[in-house]
Amino acid sequence: MPKQQVDTLIIHANVFTMAGSGVGALADGAVAVVGDRIAAVGRTDELLASCEGTEVLDGSKFAVLPGLIDCHVHSPEALLRGVAQDVPDYMERAMAPFSKALTEELKLAGTRLNVLESIKAGTTTMMDYTAPYPGWADFYSSVGVRARLTPTINGLAPGAMARAQGGVYELDDSKGRRMLDTALDFEAQWQETADERITVMMGPQAPDMLSPELLRVVKDEAGRRNLMIHMHVAQGDREIHQMEQRYGIRSVPFLEDLGYLGEQLYAVHLTEATADEVRTLVQHGVSMGVCSGCIGLLDGIVPPAALFRSEGGMVGLGTDSASSNNCISIFNEMKLTALFNKIQSKRPDVVPAWQALRMATIEGARAIGLGDQVGSLEPGKQADLILVDLDQLNLAPVVQSPIRNIVPNLVYSATGHEVDSVMVAGKFLMRGRDVLTADESAIRGDAQAAASEISRRVQADPDHRKLSLLSAMRDGSL
Amino acid sequence: MPKQQVDTLIIHANVFTMAGSGVGALADGAVAVVGDRIAAVGRTDELLASCEGTEVLDGSKFAVLPGLIDCHVHSPEALLRGVAQDVPDYMERAMAPFSKALTEELKLAGTRLNVLESIKAGTTTMMDYTAPYPGWADFYSSVGVRARLTPTINGLAPGAMARAQGGVYELDDSKGRRMLDTALDFEAQWQETADERITVMMGPQAPDMLSPELLRVVKDEAGRRNLMIHMHVAQGDREIHQMEQRYGIRSVPFLEDLGYLGEQLYAVHLTEATADEVRTLVQHGVSMGVCSGCIGLLDGIVPPAALFRSEGGMVGLGTDSASSNNCISIFNEMKLTALFNKIQSKRPDVVPAWQALRMATIEGARAIGLGDQVGSLEPGKQADLILVDLDQLNLAPVVQSPIRNIVPNLVYSATGHEVDSVMVAGKFLMRGRDVLTADESAIRGDAQAAASEISRRVQADPDHRKLSLLSAMRDGSL
Repeated sequence: MPKQQVDTLIIHANVFTMAGSGVGALADGAVAVVGDRIAAVGRTDELLASCEGTEVLDGSKFAVLPGLIDCHVHSPEALLRGVAQDVPDYMERAMAPFSKALTEELKLAGTRLNVLESIKAGTTTMMDYTAPYPGWADFYSSVGVRARLTPTINGLAPGAMARAQGGVYELDDSKGRRMLDTALDFEAQWQETADERITVMMGPQAPDMLSPELLRVVKDEAGRRNLMIHMHVAQGDREIHQMEQRYGIRSVPFLEDLGYLGEQLYAVHLTEATADEVRTLVQHGVSMGVCSGCIGLLDGIVPPAALFRSEGGMVGLGTDSASSNNCISIFNEMKLTALFNKIQSKRPDVVPAWQALRMATIEGARAIGLGDQVGSLEPGKQADLILVDLDQLNLAPVVQSPIRNIVPNLVYSATGHEVDSVMVAGKFLMRGRDVLTADESAIRGDAQAAASEISRRVQADPDHRKLSLLSAMRDGSL
Repeated sequence: MPKQQVDTLIIHANVFTMAGSGVGALADGAVAVVGDRIAAVGRTDELLASCEGTEVLDGSKFAVLPGLIDCHVHSPEALLRGVAQDVPDYMERAMAPFSKALTEELKLAGTRLNVLESIKAGTTTMMDYTAPYPGWADFYSSVGVRARLTPTINGLAPGAMARAQGGVYELDDSKGRRMLDTALDFEAQWQETADERITVMMGPQAPDMLSPELLRVVKDEAGRRNLMIHMHVAQGDREIHQMEQRYGIRSVPFLEDLGYLGEQLYAVHLTEATADEVRTLVQHGVSMGVCSGCIGLLDGIVPPAALFRSEGGMVGLGTDSASSNNCISIFNEMKLTALFNKIQSKRPDVVPAWQALRMATIEGARAIGLGDQVGSLEPGKQADLILVDLDQLNLAPVVQSPIRNIVPNLVYSATGHEVDSVMVAGKFLMRGRDVLTADESAIRGDAQAAASEISRRVQADPDHRKLSLLSAMRDGSL
């Protein structure tokens, strides 16, 4: 029988397919790629017998995994890394003047930094969530990463949060409708473009930030286009307080009454969701995004991801933003999600390594509606995969029997810096830690220039005097 | 005035001296090194005016910090990375057959791996805690890292833990005395050797693992030699249960009665210490070692480091072991100590970045009795310092005003892989991530060979059938 000609044949690797219910470990495994898809996965001897590779890649020092999925990120905020942590009232006392200074023309420098950082940490699919601006989707198209983009729809009147003083925020439906129109235009332009690497969701910002009427319109427009809805839900006591003041009801029952709960809803954060609310969401088929690093750092809260998953729901991991989390790595999120939930429950067996790795791959893919295309290494799926260098000292030695130590070390020891190569849709975006589809040095330089411009603007804004961290500057602790 | 000739002059760097009560930030800072000591620290223009460097190093892309201090590690266990997590009863159900297989002749391969991993993550002082074996201290001597070595003294009868079945462990004073003799011989041979880089502490393993009589002897011998005591204290409910069964008293009051509490005592873990016990320890001048990563992963517990520090005690950070923590990086410990304590207290302002960095440097140095020599960059102190590459994407961009973002990013985003160069006692151990004083490839290869031998031994040992993780192997989740 003639051998099948394949574009890339990776052999002798520790492959983790994530197919089935576990991690799908294959020692001395091989993966064959044709075009943008996985053609075959199996033992090296099997694939060498059946395939001829145009490129044959010796994977003996690598773990080969599905590319990781960042299920929630605000990419422009990469420019604000490290300016807002360790303080209560983060939004008003740390972020506000920086957010104001991060104007539309600076955002692309942030997105580009964020996307490169993500690729270098092994992320192949990014759920970016922001008000669309010129160049946003174009960069995703050119750099080659898979993107599920959510143009946000926010119906708060400008300045409403600052003015509310503990009362309800003023809503502005006409602004919200303009943002909806922008989102629909964005969808018309970008849905299933760049060889279908780019797809779109609808993004009503939060249940307290749009009127019920506008939320219904968004839902109808999404339904008409068969789009999922990507939404912050129960993202803090601030939101719950708004909902109770305005409607006398918490976020989850409010959304249930509005007909929002269903498989089309991907709900992010859920920091305030009760156990009963989690069960309600799972029963309706809602999926969850958890941003453990961000919520731990900003709020000292552990969202109910372990419960959501154990009730049968799909959970994906998100980095949220470098302004809230300081780092953008799904390796970090795997580890923190596992550790935080162990601490929350005081049990070491809660969220074991394999569950964290599933959230970062196949379960995250399912949570965001891409489970048929990515998240596992199976024939016919998109060839989104990463090679992790097991020769890095923090992943050595490799033990194969009587138990295997690779997955625990990927979750509890790897950081993202160990990722050697990244492939999306059959094309390498990074090899040997060199990004091939963008100029890393130029992107870092542009980000630095944009950040310096933001510094100048914040320094010139009298509001910067309200920054909590100014006292840390004065007393020498920053 | 003639310029002072210095060996190394680092200029244009973001220097954090850690002198005083904060982080001692110097933008466009410089550090001059002569021999094994820091000769001067200041602004670049000042040092260029006063010093002539044999080597002048452009530090403009670096943060320069005191080398990090690992205040508690069992180095041989690096060979067991990733074999024992996510399970209750870690000692008996996960570690036991592996610990048995890690015999004396294999340990050096583990220590060497651990030490290299530490250096590459920016650690310059290591508090290694293990039963001494041939070659242990020699490797520290040759590789050039600073080491505070603690040969352990354990008075448990062999097999006592497995036999106890919930009752008290059988003690064996004669075994304990032999280990004490070994420790004293070790001290006589190694104390203040290798240009005083190597120093020694006494290491009674834990209050429940030696008889009160032997604990008194150890304390007397330590006092006679002016040695500090490095001891696991209140390291789990197992220990407290032993103490209460045997003496009707908890660990901290037991040690108080025995005269152990004082500045000579460095107490590690304290997972079970109550708030009152923490205050008692601090009042006596005891210091604390906290191993956040290990204790979070194994027990889901957050030790009372924030309380200990806020009461005025000195806290150092430890990695514990790759078998319990999977990674060996004080960057990881800074981050987890900050995040876990925020979660414990549900407050984002608990353990801010600067406090974590102080625990990893000057406060850790003071906790282990080296505060006069290392932990800050000040003239006359040992030249132990690291250069962290701020050009790494996860540390970009750098913001200097109106607030500085470097320290928060070092704590919440850096992982250790960003460390470019490491100097101990004025000598570079690593430059551009190349370790100069050891053969990384050979050390990794030897560690892999030793781990494979351990695998064979465990596989041949019928006790391996008790491993909890075998079920995870069978069901495909490892």
